[in-house]
Amino acid sequence: MGIFQRFARLPLKSTYIWSLCPQYSTDLTAVDRALIVQLIQHRYVHSRGLGASPANPGAAPPRLPFSRVTQEVLAFFRTLLPGRTITDPDLLKSSNVDWLKTVEGNSEVLLRPKTTEEVSQILRHCSERNLAVCPQGGNTGLVGGSVPVFDEIILSTSLMNQVITFDNISGILTCQAGCVLENLSNYLEERDFIMPLDLGAKGSCHIGGNVSTNAGGLRLLRYGSLRGTVLGLEVVLADGRILKCLATLRKDNTGYDLKQLFIGSEGTLGVITAVSILCPRKPKAVNVAFLGCSSFQQLLETFQYCRGMLGEILSAFEFLDASCMSLLEKHLKLTNPITESPFYIVIETAGSNATHDEEKLHQFLEEVMTSSLVTDGTVATEATKIKALWSLRERVTEALTHEGYTYKYDISLPVEKIYDLVQDMRGHLGDMAKNVVGYGHVGDGNLHLNITSPSKDPALLAAIEPYVYEWTSEWKGSISAEHGLGLKKRNYIYYSKPSEAVALMGSIKAMLDPKGILNPYKTLPDNIH
Amino acid sequence: MGIFQRFARLPLKSTYIWSLCPQYSTDLTAVDRALIVQLIQHRYVHSRGLGASPANPGAAPPRLPFSRVTQEVLAFFRTLLPGRTITDPDLLKSSNVDWLKTVEGNSEVLLRPKTTEEVSQILRHCSERNLAVCPQGGNTGLVGGSVPVFDEIILSTSLMNQVITFDNISGILTCQAGCVLENLSNYLEERDFIMPLDLGAKGSCHIGGNVSTNAGGLRLLRYGSLRGTVLGLEVVLADGRILKCLATLRKDNTGYDLKQLFIGSEGTLGVITAVSILCPRKPKAVNVAFLGCSSFQQLLETFQYCRGMLGEILSAFEFLDASCMSLLEKHLKLTNPITESPFYIVIETAGSNATHDEEKLHQFLEEVMTSSLVTDGTVATEATKIKALWSLRERVTEALTHEGYTYKYDISLPVEKIYDLVQDMRGHLGDMAKNVVGYGHVGDGNLHLNITSPSKDPALLAAIEPYVYEWTSEWKGSISAEHGLGLKKRNYIYYSKPSEAVALMGSIKAMLDPKGILNPYKTLPDNIH
Repeated sequence: MGIFQRFARLPLKSTYIWSLCPQYSTDLTAVDRALIVQLIQHRYVHSRGLGASPANPGAAPPRLPFSRVTQEVLAFFRTLLPGRTITDPDLLKSSNVDWLKTVEGNSEVLLRPKTTEEVSQILRHCSERNLAVCPQGGNTGLVGGSVPVFDEIILSTSLMNQVITFDNISGILTCQAGCVLENLSNYLEERDFIMPLDLGAKGSCHIGGNVSTNAGGLRLLRYGSLRGTVLGLEVVLADGRILKCLATLRKDNTGYDLKQLFIGSEGTLGVITAVSILCPRKPKAVNVAFLGCSSFQQLLETFQYCRGMLGEILSAFEFLDASCMSLLEKHLKLTNPITESPFYIVIETAGSNATHDEEKLHQFLEEVMTSSLVTDGTVATEATKIKALWSLRERVTEALTHEGYTYKYDISLPVEKIYDLVQDMRGHLGDMAKNVVGYGHVGDGNLHLNITSPSKDPALLAAIEPYVYEWTSEWKGSISAEHGLGLKKRNYIYYSKPSEAVALMGSIKAMLDPKGILNPYKTLPDNIH
Repeated sequence: MGIFQRFARLPLKSTYIWSLCPQYSTDLTAVDRALIVQLIQHRYVHSRGLGASPANPGAAPPRLPFSRVTQEVLAFFRTLLPGRTITDPDLLKSSNVDWLKTVEGNSEVLLRPKTTEEVSQILRHCSERNLAVCPQGGNTGLVGGSVPVFDEIILSTSLMNQVITFDNISGILTCQAGCVLENLSNYLEERDFIMPLDLGAKGSCHIGGNVSTNAGGLRLLRYGSLRGTVLGLEVVLADGRILKCLATLRKDNTGYDLKQLFIGSEGTLGVITAVSILCPRKPKAVNVAFLGCSSFQQLLETFQYCRGMLGEILSAFEFLDASCMSLLEKHLKLTNPITESPFYIVIETAGSNATHDEEKLHQFLEEVMTSSLVTDGTVATEATKIKALWSLRERVTEALTHEGYTYKYDISLPVEKIYDLVQDMRGHLGDMAKNVVGYGHVGDGNLHLNITSPSKDPALLAAIEPYVYEWTSEWKGSISAEHGLGLKKRNYIYYSKPSEAVALMGSIKAMLDPKGILNPYKTLPDNIH
């Protein structure tokens, strides 16, 4: 019996296979393993009845039978949005491809409404004619959720960029969906407030997109998720109806909280046109410490001390590994400010009393230095130095893009497991991968696992997936902590959600968007069972 | 033309009427006004097509055509839940009536399952036979949401009271829905953590009920709402299907966040059987200050100072007025620890460094005392004294029950408006009400407006409603900030939500509970248009 026939009888989970077959687990090469995993993946996908190519469930499915954009449709849009109906292929190019350049659509029209009423008219028209629509914010998503897959009409929020109101007593901001996060941050800082979220893509991403993807980012540890800080939404439904739930109240228990349906549903249930959000006061003092640790275990112990000693002023606890640092140095010419270490931590404090904060930070640093948990470190209190230290964490994603092709995974796990996955993956892939790096949000148990290769490599992909998802599922983790599912991860949803839950998601989609015109091929798997 | 005919031609909103008809607004007695409002309310209710009695849209609607509990049904339950199928009327009594004794049902059977599987079998049986079910936790709700209206089967979570897991690294607790909040608090405190919510009813309320009603309470200002802190739920759907979304991850963006549907939907969409929730570390230092202010404006200024100077250690900013204090003294024999004042504030700090916290609190108190914003005050750092000060705020609800009948309103408003409603209501009601008192959560813009009367008084009710709801709606407030809608407030939902939103809620209900057996007559209005 050949090796493939033997495996064909084994349980489907590839992680089990190595332990069930110790005779194979040591003497197989990574390439052998990759082929076997590819075989298993093929069976896995089919056994679950998914529709995408078995070799890559993240690839595009066949085009659904939506209508095509006709001259009559274009004429309607040009009347509705004069000068804001873009059909020039050159101008459409950047909206058809995602930031990572891994998903490229072929849309022939980009619409740039300025008002909710215009969005409503666009969707009513598309709904009546069965035209598919891809809502697009800053197009900074990492899972192919923000670009068309085929010829969907791109509905951009880029001109919906007005602040509607800001109340400097309550800190509640109401704005259109297309406001760029960094612009909102600047607007608020002038008024002594900050946005409750911050992320590397802040210079481009739109608040509507942030809410649609339930973006996490660097401040979640302190200010919680958008599910708590978003107080109201205005949403245009698939048929053009406008849902005005733009409340500016911290508490409101009158019926079901509909806005939650649209937070994190990636534009598949409605188009968010305006947001009201609770913004914290700007902290009077901010400190950033950049520290080195010689093991992940020591990093975790440092985290425990940090939570205890910095308590309520801790606003971020992030990490990157030595491989990330090498990439920052190599591609972005950034300088490591401390002695080389296997792990680096970025700790931010934000508080109302500079003296108290510095005292707490000092006590904490003394504790972790004397107990040798931390090998070296530097602290910044001044804005430009803070920015420089933060860039070591924020620009890892950018550094990775210079490495060739990057396979990106955004995993939630119990915090003590997050780096095990990186190490395990290194062992598992051996020489197949150019780099296997880990960074992310320790405070949230959120690992960004990135695997690079000189170019797209199906064998490498087959060695990574579904291995990475099974590993995550085994530890009851999430296969997408904050990036969403988009196009690329949609068919892997069953690794983190039971089929009853996915079926219910399908019912919600059918209820809100019965024709399925909103951001098709995204978030939900090709087949729901 | 008689006065009623004149009014019949005017716009429906009673708040407008007084300003539109200055000739009537000064020389009408409160009783006149009440009669007029009653007339308007009658027209209002009918104009909106509501089904409940026009005089009282909060009253019970006609019984819906659910099946009756038969001997065969009882036999099934007795086999499934031996000794836990209660039919003795004496034992059923306390479960048939709400804590305020304002809503009384007539259920003939109370079920006390211990496991999710049992809940599933109960609901499957009820769904197949079209039997209505009232899920019940600690039965501490204030809007008639937790008791049967007619003969609904009571499904109590009281025996589902086990902690499932607690992870003392992440602070994530997973437990059955029937755990009493105070028991969970005690369990966590022994492990150096606390629950992210706290409320007066903690000694009886169940965590499942807290989540089902999206309870707010005393710690929301600091730890945010349950929509952020609840990480996972296990829910049994109306047809008995079990939805296992009991994740223990801070971040998970794999598909739609289904748990949000069940948070705050008052048991109308599913029965929550288990909860996982993120618990904060127990603060190392807690201080409580009890302060007096001579005006609400000064109280608001004190709040602004407080947020600036206490910042991240502020964990509660609550208030009560002098009328509340009188009731505490009169009915509960509590002693006012400071000089009599028109307003009292309870401020709590919770932090990781006692010295720093005391210093911040001291600086703040010095500032507000020297600027005469605060007239008198006392501070507690010791547990029993802290408890005593807190009881002045927490026991207001209890004190009110000794006054006769209480009309309770739980309103969200822009914080600077909250006491205007109390004062306006006093003027509006004049001698009709025994007491009009205000207390609540300043930090959340949440007023508890309570109006007492020696006994139930339809004329008083007619003077209060819809006046109070119109007033709230005028300021874009919420007519139920944290109590939910239950039976009593269901038909007032349109004051806080547009009809498109209510219609969508109706679609969600129809999708998840097509027979409408789960907690009927609650949350959604009698007629959805």
